[in-house]
Amino acid sequence: MDLDALKRDLDGLKVEDNPALVQQKSRDFYWYSPVLKRQLDHVTADLVVSPRDEAEVIRVLAACHRHHVPVTPRGTGTGNYGQAMPLSGGVVLSLAEMNVVSTIAPGRVVCGPGAIIAEIDRATRAHSGQELRMHPSTYATASIGGFIAGGSGGVGSINFGGLRDFGNVLRLQVVTMEAEPQVLELTGEDLHKVTHAYGTNGIITEVEMPLTAAYDWVDVIVAFDDFDAAARYGNALACQDGILTKLVTPVAAPAPWLYFKRHQKFLREGQSVVVCMVAPQSLDAFRAFSRREVAEIVYDSTLVADRKGLPPAYELAWNHTTLRALRVDPSITYLQSLYPFPNQLDLVRKVDGMFPGEVMSHLEFVRFDGNITCFGLPLVKFTTEERLDEIIRTYEDNGCPIFNPHRYTLEEGGMKQTDEVQLAFKRRADPQGLLNPGKMIAWEHPEYDFRSGKTFLFKGLERVG
Amino acid sequence: MDLDALKRDLDGLKVEDNPALVQQKSRDFYWYSPVLKRQLDHVTADLVVSPRDEAEVIRVLAACHRHHVPVTPRGTGTGNYGQAMPLSGGVVLSLAEMNVVSTIAPGRVVCGPGAIIAEIDRATRAHSGQELRMHPSTYATASIGGFIAGGSGGVGSINFGGLRDFGNVLRLQVVTMEAEPQVLELTGEDLHKVTHAYGTNGIITEVEMPLTAAYDWVDVIVAFDDFDAAARYGNALACQDGILTKLVTPVAAPAPWLYFKRHQKFLREGQSVVVCMVAPQSLDAFRAFSRREVAEIVYDSTLVADRKGLPPAYELAWNHTTLRALRVDPSITYLQSLYPFPNQLDLVRKVDGMFPGEVMSHLEFVRFDGNITCFGLPLVKFTTEERLDEIIRTYEDNGCPIFNPHRYTLEEGGMKQTDEVQLAFKRRADPQGLLNPGKMIAWEHPEYDFRSGKTFLFKGLERVG
Repeated sequence: MDLDALKRDLDGLKVEDNPALVQQKSRDFYWYSPVLKRQLDHVTADLVVSPRDEAEVIRVLAACHRHHVPVTPRGTGTGNYGQAMPLSGGVVLSLAEMNVVSTIAPGRVVCGPGAIIAEIDRATRAHSGQELRMHPSTYATASIGGFIAGGSGGVGSINFGGLRDFGNVLRLQVVTMEAEPQVLELTGEDLHKVTHAYGTNGIITEVEMPLTAAYDWVDVIVAFDDFDAAARYGNALACQDGILTKLVTPVAAPAPWLYFKRHQKFLREGQSVVVCMVAPQSLDAFRAFSRREVAEIVYDSTLVADRKGLPPAYELAWNHTTLRALRVDPSITYLQSLYPFPNQLDLVRKVDGMFPGEVMSHLEFVRFDGNITCFGLPLVKFTTEERLDEIIRTYEDNGCPIFNPHRYTLEEGGMKQTDEVQLAFKRRADPQGLLNPGKMIAWEHPEYDFRSGKTFLFKGLERVG
Repeated sequence: MDLDALKRDLDGLKVEDNPALVQQKSRDFYWYSPVLKRQLDHVTADLVVSPRDEAEVIRVLAACHRHHVPVTPRGTGTGNYGQAMPLSGGVVLSLAEMNVVSTIAPGRVVCGPGAIIAEIDRATRAHSGQELRMHPSTYATASIGGFIAGGSGGVGSINFGGLRDFGNVLRLQVVTMEAEPQVLELTGEDLHKVTHAYGTNGIITEVEMPLTAAYDWVDVIVAFDDFDAAARYGNALACQDGILTKLVTPVAAPAPWLYFKRHQKFLREGQSVVVCMVAPQSLDAFRAFSRREVAEIVYDSTLVADRKGLPPAYELAWNHTTLRALRVDPSITYLQSLYPFPNQLDLVRKVDGMFPGEVMSHLEFVRFDGNITCFGLPLVKFTTEERLDEIIRTYEDNGCPIFNPHRYTLEEGGMKQTDEVQLAFKRRADPQGLLNPGKMIAWEHPEYDFRSGKTFLFKGLERVG
């Protein structure tokens, strides 16, 4: 890597080479995982380049291609699988400054990849009472491009499923990593080529996303003496077709009282909860439903005058549940599971229940292929990596797929198989393999046996580590 | 009935007693059913009274109570179970003039019961890009109060379920039939007391309904060479969580080519179709999905410049499918069936398939208790009432409940059992039994055996008939 030559070629662009600042921008929330923390703690880029528009992205990619310098794209670094960490050093391409919201129309918004999700919603709400269909719990800080490239769903998935589903991303503009980078427009089936690919096969420079009606969502917490009742209530609420919710999140005791510190005053020790976001026009029906289910509403943001210091409901949910637990007890980590429909409640009871005192249930109800079911983000008291793998195997042996958040590769954190569409697109868009090296096993090690049970160790990481 | 005394008491109100005009306002679309046509053809009221506001409704009800005159409320008479037909004569209370849209806010609209559904949407669209969650195929002419009192769901139920579901009606104001009529406000669980009660236990004078985002829905017809493929496509489309549709309606050959006359030029004889309404922002994803399913889009309203004379997609669906068939072949009638999840496709194939040449499948995909399933409104070549009953029994014996559209009572057209909540409310709100007599069997004949297999014949109807 001739970094000096590269820097000369980048003259006039915003380039950072202060090692402390570069390291800061080379990290994400990988430390959620003790495994990734051990593996990735030393990872850093050589430079951070912050293009202001697509033309500058093209310049950076052409220059890096010329000098064989790896490029790892980054939004705001709120992922927690090391998605945005530059395993082979080189350039971190920060897209944070490409954050313009350029077009808002009924049902759609066009913006730069670096636009913060909450900022997009602020603009679309002010424009026409619209908001994005879904967002991660890092709503306030995550970029839309990072969400598309490294996320999968979240708050709002109860209505619209996941980002992978047809229609949840409308259009992506992508720049390829070639001597002469090309700009491609992807729609329809082609979107799958680059969504959730960690930026391994193209740099997203513009996104068009669907919008839905924005409401002043009401945060509600419903409490139960046993978790099974909470899970059943959450499932039944999610099945209420006329009650518009955006979040239905059961969390098992003792987590709510221990980890939701700022809401502790509304809870009793030992309570399991369901954290909800409810549309204001559905609140009366929500209360009637909860009364019928003999469920106790312990917090309702419309009835609490002083909400200062209280985080919004979505910051108790999805990966923020883990974050809150981690802050109180650093030995906590988590898993990501799916409890396939229609047996979700039985599977939760059975599989989560196999690890008393070690696993605390945390469910997120979603629509999945037309049905209501739940993902799990169970909190796990971490002891050893071997024990964590044992727990994962138990889930999978019982029919609950695990999307392993302790792996930095696409495949190991996902479907444990080659994504032929993304691989084929990488061959075209990044023939030299310079984009986010080490994240796509199918590219790095085509013969890799995903069923070996071993963790893939990227050679770049070996060398640097 | 001392009608002269009543008329004196109604002085100053809008009262019609011209027999021809009164008979016109005493009818609905009951003639869809050859059975109801035979039973109800002679039914007529003595007067039509058209109050302009709630105070006038109270005056009418007090006066009718005083003179023991039955009152049958009516919106615009687009129901087709004789809901609005005055079986004991007396007064038809036309609420068509109480049609003011008074408040529009995010997610909600308040209006009079006589407001036409399409007019409400026109106002809410202009105000803030919103529309009602669901509407019948008689969108252009049906009143909102009639829809709530006599309907159950329709276009939009694919997203929000039915009117019976928590949250799909927000608030109803109701006037009781007493010496001194009371005004009651119903919300939450209490709404069930008067929704789908045909106005037997209170007169709705104001409604508050939830709104959702309005879009310029795109009408699409997808065609198939066999109906099974059409049904499977419809089910799979309805399960696409990210593709926003408002209507997914499979109709079996030969009906589309025979009965959708104005769309015939887009079809081939022998084709089965799926009629859809798709949000514009979902159209690209819809096309990609259809391509993957190897489905042929034969009509797309965005690609047909001259749409003059083409009815909107929703006027090919729900009860309009029947209407179109009836217009071409007066021997056609229909049934209403539910194919319970998760066996809907197998049940459609099995049960509809038992009557080749006699029953043509027509499905409407909906959300039902959180799942995607379908109702059926199969077209039936009518021969005799006995044969129709035989077909109904076959459906029910095979696990497909029939909501019989050839009965004018709430129970026989619905769950075939007493609705204790509505009955209790009627005891309070209409102690003399003057509201829409003959429609609630539980009131007229408390000992009636719903399992007898016989049709309930209202004594008032016997007397008049």
